[in-house]
Amino acid sequence: MDAPSPLIPHFQNELEQLKARLLVMAGAAEAQVGDAMRALVDRDHALAERVLAGDAVINQLHVEIDERCFHMLALHQPMATDLRVVVSAVKINSDLERIGDFAINIAEATLRYLEHPSLKPLIDIPRMGDIAQTMLSDALDAYVRHDSVLAQLVLDSDDALDQLKNQVFRDLIGFMSSDGQVTQPALDLLLISRHLERIGDHATNIAEEAIFIVSGRDVRHHGREGGAPDV
Amino acid sequence: MDAPSPLIPHFQNELEQLKARLLVMAGAAEAQVGDAMRALVDRDHALAERVLAGDAVINQLHVEIDERCFHMLALHQPMATDLRVVVSAVKINSDLERIGDFAINIAEATLRYLEHPSLKPLIDIPRMGDIAQTMLSDALDAYVRHDSVLAQLVLDSDDALDQLKNQVFRDLIGFMSSDGQVTQPALDLLLISRHLERIGDHATNIAEEAIFIVSGRDVRHHGREGGAPDV
Repeated sequence: MDAPSPLIPHFQNELEQLKARLLVMAGAAEAQVGDAMRALVDRDHALAERVLAGDAVINQLHVEIDERCFHMLALHQPMATDLRVVVSAVKINSDLERIGDFAINIAEATLRYLEHPSLKPLIDIPRMGDIAQTMLSDALDAYVRHDSVLAQLVLDSDDALDQLKNQVFRDLIGFMSSDGQVTQPALDLLLISRHLERIGDHATNIAEEAIFIVSGRDVRHHGREGGAPDV
Repeated sequence: MDAPSPLIPHFQNELEQLKARLLVMAGAAEAQVGDAMRALVDRDHALAERVLAGDAVINQLHVEIDERCFHMLALHQPMATDLRVVVSAVKINSDLERIGDFAINIAEATLRYLEHPSLKPLIDIPRMGDIAQTMLSDALDAYVRHDSVLAQLVLDSDDALDQLKNQVFRDLIGFMSSDGQVTQPALDLLLISRHLERIGDHATNIAEEAIFIVSGRDVRHHGREGGAPDV
C-alpha cells in the first residue's frame, strides 16, 4: 500500500513475525477465556486453577511483543501504514493482556461460585462467552489480514454482548432480591458477565485499530462510552 | 540522558507539548472521577449528568494525543529514551481514556443509586475515590518528571485501594444478604468501588511506564494480576 522502504525485506519479515506473535497471544487469551468458561459450566475446580496458572504465558508474551514493537520502531523507523501497524500492535498487545486478566477474574469468580450449589442452569453467560471469544478471534484476524469488513462485524457483535449482559444482570438481581442466601453466588455470576462484556470491549478496540489501519478512519468514540450501563 | 539528535530543538518542543496535553487529559479524567464521586456523596443528580456529558472532551483529547504521538514517530523517528517516552504516551493515553470511561460508569451507577434512599453513610468509597485520584495525579507527574520514586508510591497505594475495595465488597454483600430490598443500591455501590479499583489499576500502569522510562526496568507482571479478587 505504501512506497517500499529500503529496509523492506528485513522489516516485512519482522512485521510478519510480530503479527504471528500477536496471533499466538490472542490464541492464548482466547484459550484462557474458554477454559475459564468451561470451568464454570462443568463445575471444574481443577480447570479454574489451571487458568490462574496460565496467566504467566500471556504476561511473557506481553513483555516480548512490547519489546519487539519498540525495537522495530527504533531500528527500522517505519512509515505510513507500516508505522500504523506497529503502533496498533502496541495497543492490541495491551488489550490482549487485559483480556488475559479478565480470564483470571472469571476463574477467580468461578472458584468462589463453585463453593455453593448451582444457582441456576447457565444459558446466557456461556452464550456471552462464545460471543466474546468469537469477537476476539475475528478482531485479530481483521487486524492481521487488514480486513475492515470482519472488523465491522466485531463492532456489531458488541451490541449483542451488551444486551445479553443487561439481561443477565436483571435476572441475577431478581435472584438476589428474593433470597438473601444466594447473594454471593449470584454476585459472582453477575461479575463474570461483566468481565465478558469487558472482553468484548477490548476486542472492539482491536477491531477499531484494524479499521483504522485499512481506512485511516478513526471509528473510536462514535458510540456510547464506558461499556453498557449495568442495568 | 541520550545523545542529542539533529532534530532536538523541534522535537523537544513537541515532546513538551505532548506531555502538557497528557497532563491536560489527566486533569480532565481526574476532574471527571472527582465530580462523579461528589455527585454520589452529595446526591447531586445534575452533577452526575454533567459527568456523562463531560466525556466528549476526554475523547477528543484521546484522538488528538494519539495523532500527536503518531506524527512524532513518523516525522522525527526518535531514539532511545525519547522513543520510549512517545511509545509510553500512546499507552498512557489509552489508560487515561479508560479512566474517563470508568468515571462515566460511576456517574451511571450514581444516577441509579440516587433513585433509592441512602443505603448507609459513605465512608470507605469516598476514601477510595481520594486514593484513586491521588494515584492518577502522582502517576502522571512521575511520567512527566521521570520520577521513579513517586511512581513507586503509586504502586504501593494500589494495595491500599484493593484492600478497601475488598472491605467495601464484604460490607455490601452483608447488606444484600440481609435485605432483598436493597439489592440494587448495594450492587451499585459495589460496582462503583470496583470502578475505582480499576482506575487505580490504570494509574498503576502509568506509574509502571514512568519507572520503565527512567530505569529501563520492566516492573509489570511482578505482582498479582487481574486486579484484586472480588471478595
